[in-house]
Amino acid sequence: MPVSEKIRASIERSSWIRKMFEEGMIRKAKFGPDNVFDFSLGNPNLEPPASFKEVLQSLAKDPSPAQHAYMPNAGRTDAREAVAAYLRKNNRQAFSPDDIIMTVGAGGGLNVVLKTVLNPGDEVVIPSPYFVEYNFYLDNHQGVPRVVKTKKDFSLDMDAIGDAITEKVRAVLINSPNNPTGKVYDRTILEQLAGLLRDRSRSLGRPIYLISDEPYRKIVYDRIAVPSVFDVYEESFVVTSFSKDLSLPGERIGYAAVHPYASDKSSLIAGMVLCNRILGYVNAPALMQRAIIPLLEQSVDVSAYQRKRDMLCEGLSSLGYEFEKPGGAFYLFPRTPIDDDVAFVSALQEENILTVPGSGFYGPGHMRIAFCVDDRTIEKSLPGFGRALKKFKK
Amino acid sequence: MPVSEKIRASIERSSWIRKMFEEGMIRKAKFGPDNVFDFSLGNPNLEPPASFKEVLQSLAKDPSPAQHAYMPNAGRTDAREAVAAYLRKNNRQAFSPDDIIMTVGAGGGLNVVLKTVLNPGDEVVIPSPYFVEYNFYLDNHQGVPRVVKTKKDFSLDMDAIGDAITEKVRAVLINSPNNPTGKVYDRTILEQLAGLLRDRSRSLGRPIYLISDEPYRKIVYDRIAVPSVFDVYEESFVVTSFSKDLSLPGERIGYAAVHPYASDKSSLIAGMVLCNRILGYVNAPALMQRAIIPLLEQSVDVSAYQRKRDMLCEGLSSLGYEFEKPGGAFYLFPRTPIDDDVAFVSALQEENILTVPGSGFYGPGHMRIAFCVDDRTIEKSLPGFGRALKKFKK
Repeated sequence: MPVSEKIRASIERSSWIRKMFEEGMIRKAKFGPDNVFDFSLGNPNLEPPASFKEVLQSLAKDPSPAQHAYMPNAGRTDAREAVAAYLRKNNRQAFSPDDIIMTVGAGGGLNVVLKTVLNPGDEVVIPSPYFVEYNFYLDNHQGVPRVVKTKKDFSLDMDAIGDAITEKVRAVLINSPNNPTGKVYDRTILEQLAGLLRDRSRSLGRPIYLISDEPYRKIVYDRIAVPSVFDVYEESFVVTSFSKDLSLPGERIGYAAVHPYASDKSSLIAGMVLCNRILGYVNAPALMQRAIIPLLEQSVDVSAYQRKRDMLCEGLSSLGYEFEKPGGAFYLFPRTPIDDDVAFVSALQEENILTVPGSGFYGPGHMRIAFCVDDRTIEKSLPGFGRALKKFKK
Repeated sequence: MPVSEKIRASIERSSWIRKMFEEGMIRKAKFGPDNVFDFSLGNPNLEPPASFKEVLQSLAKDPSPAQHAYMPNAGRTDAREAVAAYLRKNNRQAFSPDDIIMTVGAGGGLNVVLKTVLNPGDEVVIPSPYFVEYNFYLDNHQGVPRVVKTKKDFSLDMDAIGDAITEKVRAVLINSPNNPTGKVYDRTILEQLAGLLRDRSRSLGRPIYLISDEPYRKIVYDRIAVPSVFDVYEESFVVTSFSKDLSLPGERIGYAAVHPYASDKSSLIAGMVLCNRILGYVNAPALMQRAIIPLLEQSVDVSAYQRKRDMLCEGLSSLGYEFEKPGGAFYLFPRTPIDDDVAFVSALQEENILTVPGSGFYGPGHMRIAFCVDDRTIEKSLPGFGRALKKFKK
């Protein structure tokens, strides 16, 4: 037992996903990478905007001292000031730099927030399907997921959420635009959720926090609005990154923001600063904190993702696949023609099409297709999608 | 109770250090920053080598695609290959890239290793005085520190370590060159430790791991050698960063390496890769992974730190302070003239000299002086060190 029991179990559990990944590698070697259609990873295929490169070049030449030195654990003041100004503009709330912690991506930010608020055994309500990495993030801090199904169209089921909020529940964790469904929660849904949380907070005598993971906020289609949780509920956190909108996932830069009017905010901020330090992040990467300052309003060309979404949706729809058209993110989450999504994903693999079973997201009977790929990959994969469907369609 | 009970307690515990930091800020505002002598932080005052700037400029211009994309959680292959080649050259072991995980600094690397090997309640033996952040890192993974005093000259006390290794102990964590003492463990000490661990591993029927935290490896004086744990003990990990030797602490770049002949190494590596992912680091910052490749053999001008060490040691010695001359790192850990180190540090503060009480490192009766400061700060602080000592010297 060289590794801990928990880690050993996690390695074993995740090994079938790895097996599929390895299968994909084998297929790419055998059939050529152009003949394998890999929709398995949410790795943005668009390059960062040209302005990022310009900013980076100018920062690399900057002779000012101590640019790469330690800093307060919350992050550089100039970066937090810029984020606060951005949030003030895009919400109706009076953010100050003190409400912001620069983080090692959204993954870092979520861990910082969760460690700050969770006592061992505390539960967090999560609407499913969801990005199952959240389970690990909760478990890191001895938190427990309380999974609640969404409706058939992936909107929030308020009755189910209401039933799930017992006195063990500390927070609700949402992700909009959603991975893996592409669902965007509208203002009405968020207001209903806020109303519910306010009621329950009152009866429990302590706030139920709303934690909103929003790395896909700028990746939305058909001019859909992504309303902010900050405008509907005060006991809220937003965690995000520049991984998707600036295509910088490898650089691990993001932030966590607390509502300016959250109760006992100064304790929350002090806790988050401490957690950013003691979790070993220490601070978000210094150079990238500076790089994002002039780029907060920018993003990759979202119309390219919209084109891909439309190509894929039209193609799959005409083949007979059933799905909710995603309003954002770069994922399509169609129903599989048979209940056994793992079997159907295997059938697609026979066509050299790599997708992820919905079961991997607590959404069985579905599959996730990440369409952050070349247009050509989508186009050339459609015949294979058609053949696989025919095998199973009644 | 907006934050968890544990985090609340941690905030309260660390508040007196923050108070001293705030006291320092007040003094700097009142007396001018040039008249306050701040030896409290281990923030390297030397700029990164000029070659770092050149590498960064060339990387910023590189037009190749997907430079900032996701990558395997272990890190970029080119970075791991370069680190493996560097380790092969500097040790006698056959490192491959698969033995290396690029990490978010040494803090990230330590958390990855600890989460990989610790079951809840497992103990880790740590020789004191030590960098107390280790306590948080252990607690993140429900590990428990087992503190063992070093000898008066800060060398390892093998009898005490032997007594501490019970069946609850999973690992021994060392740090050489040491923070806060500057002690460098020589080859004889490491061989004795390895012998002890080998014996105990045999009788326990499982390996006791040796985890060596080595961010100060290149910061050594008088041509002192820092022998590698890899050359004396197979069940070992080395964790390090480029924070001190390249003065890049804000960029959060480091690595963790496993001994090529560690038992069941593939499980250890799989566990570390998983932990790098699920702890929310995901991967070390991409650009910095590339930046360190051509700089592995380089470091800041260590002779500047040696000059500072010598100025400080000569100055304090002639005033009557007692200490072990540090062989590496940029810390001096003198005995305080009274047992109450907090009181003596307060007396120094009255002289506008900021240091950290040894109690903060499980080394009461001492204080830590971080000499990674301007020569002028050292020079101008000496009269104040003299006056404070006179107040208490018998």
